[in-house]
Amino acid sequence: MMGSLPQVFGQADLPAQVSVYEVSARDGLQAEPVTLPAAIRVELISRLAATGLSTIEAGSFVSPKAVPQMADTRSVLDELDLDSGITYPVLAPNRRGLEDAMAARAQDIAVFVSVTESFSRANLGDSLEVTTARNRDVAAAATSAGMRVRGYLSMVFGDPWEGPVEPSQVVGAAGQLLDAGCTTISLGDTIGTATPGHVTAVLQALIEADIPVEAIALHTHNTYGQALANVYAALQSGVSEFDASAGGVGGCPFAGSATGNLATEDLLWMLDGLGISTGVDIRAVAETSQWLSRQLGKPLSSATSAAIVDQ
Amino acid sequence: MMGSLPQVFGQADLPAQVSVYEVSARDGLQAEPVTLPAAIRVELISRLAATGLSTIEAGSFVSPKAVPQMADTRSVLDELDLDSGITYPVLAPNRRGLEDAMAARAQDIAVFVSVTESFSRANLGDSLEVTTARNRDVAAAATSAGMRVRGYLSMVFGDPWEGPVEPSQVVGAAGQLLDAGCTTISLGDTIGTATPGHVTAVLQALIEADIPVEAIALHTHNTYGQALANVYAALQSGVSEFDASAGGVGGCPFAGSATGNLATEDLLWMLDGLGISTGVDIRAVAETSQWLSRQLGKPLSSATSAAIVDQ
Repeated sequence: MMGSLPQVFGQADLPAQVSVYEVSARDGLQAEPVTLPAAIRVELISRLAATGLSTIEAGSFVSPKAVPQMADTRSVLDELDLDSGITYPVLAPNRRGLEDAMAARAQDIAVFVSVTESFSRANLGDSLEVTTARNRDVAAAATSAGMRVRGYLSMVFGDPWEGPVEPSQVVGAAGQLLDAGCTTISLGDTIGTATPGHVTAVLQALIEADIPVEAIALHTHNTYGQALANVYAALQSGVSEFDASAGGVGGCPFAGSATGNLATEDLLWMLDGLGISTGVDIRAVAETSQWLSRQLGKPLSSATSAAIVDQ
Repeated sequence: MMGSLPQVFGQADLPAQVSVYEVSARDGLQAEPVTLPAAIRVELISRLAATGLSTIEAGSFVSPKAVPQMADTRSVLDELDLDSGITYPVLAPNRRGLEDAMAARAQDIAVFVSVTESFSRANLGDSLEVTTARNRDVAAAATSAGMRVRGYLSMVFGDPWEGPVEPSQVVGAAGQLLDAGCTTISLGDTIGTATPGHVTAVLQALIEADIPVEAIALHTHNTYGQALANVYAALQSGVSEFDASAGGVGGCPFAGSATGNLATEDLLWMLDGLGISTGVDIRAVAETSQWLSRQLGKPLSSATSAAIVDQ
């Protein structure tokens, strides 16, 4: 009965094409209480690859004691075709992680830097100066070795301990990561508090500081329901890369809310409706989310998945 | 720990002030399987009034057999102070309903017209011509009697049976309701499929047809997660009245999704962050939603409520 896809009404001032950076298999799963074995994560990634997604974060080279959900990332990579044209980045937050990533033949890594002192100490275990230097070092070494490096910035739009974050702090942190060789900076609304005017203000500050908009991605959380409105605002500033997680998997680490990452299929519904090309099949993503929901034994937060699959 | 409210980043081209048209006590509750007694509905409305909301839909004068959730709307109105400055509209879809509304001393009513033939027959029980004429007649009679009349348009952005809806259909239907005396036209995305470009296209069509933007409200559903992005698009076209439901109460009647109406507190989070004045206290709304959740015996869909109350 229900129309299967949104009507298309394009807008001339938006990017014609958008890259979806799929994070469910790393950022999503590492926030879930259930640890999926490597074989299931390989199946998830393969299903995601079949939807048309061209960038799928595949794992993390961190201590399996600290993040058991990402244990055996090496064996996940061993099962993937790393020369298929699909990009499978892995998180490598220190030299040891970088060495492991190289040994696993990873071509793309991601590093992780906080914009704020408090989050650096609470989440990354050291001062902002130390954690930033460590990740810049990893980025520079990986770049020298011919790898592509993405820089995640967290707490870009507010910090649960420090409160407000000034756009100038973001500009400084982004510039340091670009100088260290990162090709993309992903702006993380880690606690989900951002609203569209805030997103626009930060993006304008970055653009005015001559950071190319092509090097900027946005990583939204739907903790306060703002994720897609923030994406729409960022599209209007020219951003054309967005992080999203199939089914919205990955809870917010700070609020009791069930909603964490922006769901890939909710993002695709909007992009499809705006006539923006992604190359991704929204129904195939929704089906993958339903499969993932069964693996995790819990309902996922994507509104679109629930509505599409009911049809 | 969590920052209690969003940082404010205003945008000069958006309305400085927005009216929130609260629908939980009518549109929301009538879609819920549990029927709340009139006394609880009065308490809900009183709690909503205490949050600063200035327009709270209070009930519906329809057959209690068809809509048992709205039975005893007369006794709800009897308990409200109709001269307090807060507006308490009631739905009056036919002459009988209008007479009942007048007898209850209602000053504001709402009528309901479909944009599409299929929905008119399925939901309103008669042809589009007949149901439109009936509601125009009610609107004209109420206007003559000095009442204010709001016109709801449903299926503005798509119909589950007919599929695509042309903006020109919306322009025609809106013009008819304004001619009949309606002061506001609420554009309903009944099945939640609209995306921001679609909202912009319909609004531009209405504005080009000389329908004043001040007479336009938007009623979004979050079935595909698009509600707030659509509100942001509408703000950019100058719309300054939005329908919302505390906690997001009121499921979508067509999809299996848990998400229906846009949650008032999710809307307020965005408007507060944009520095747009509403006069409504977001925390008080979130507390009211939690209370309502207990009355209905189910969790509600508002992301913001879950996140705020956890703090």
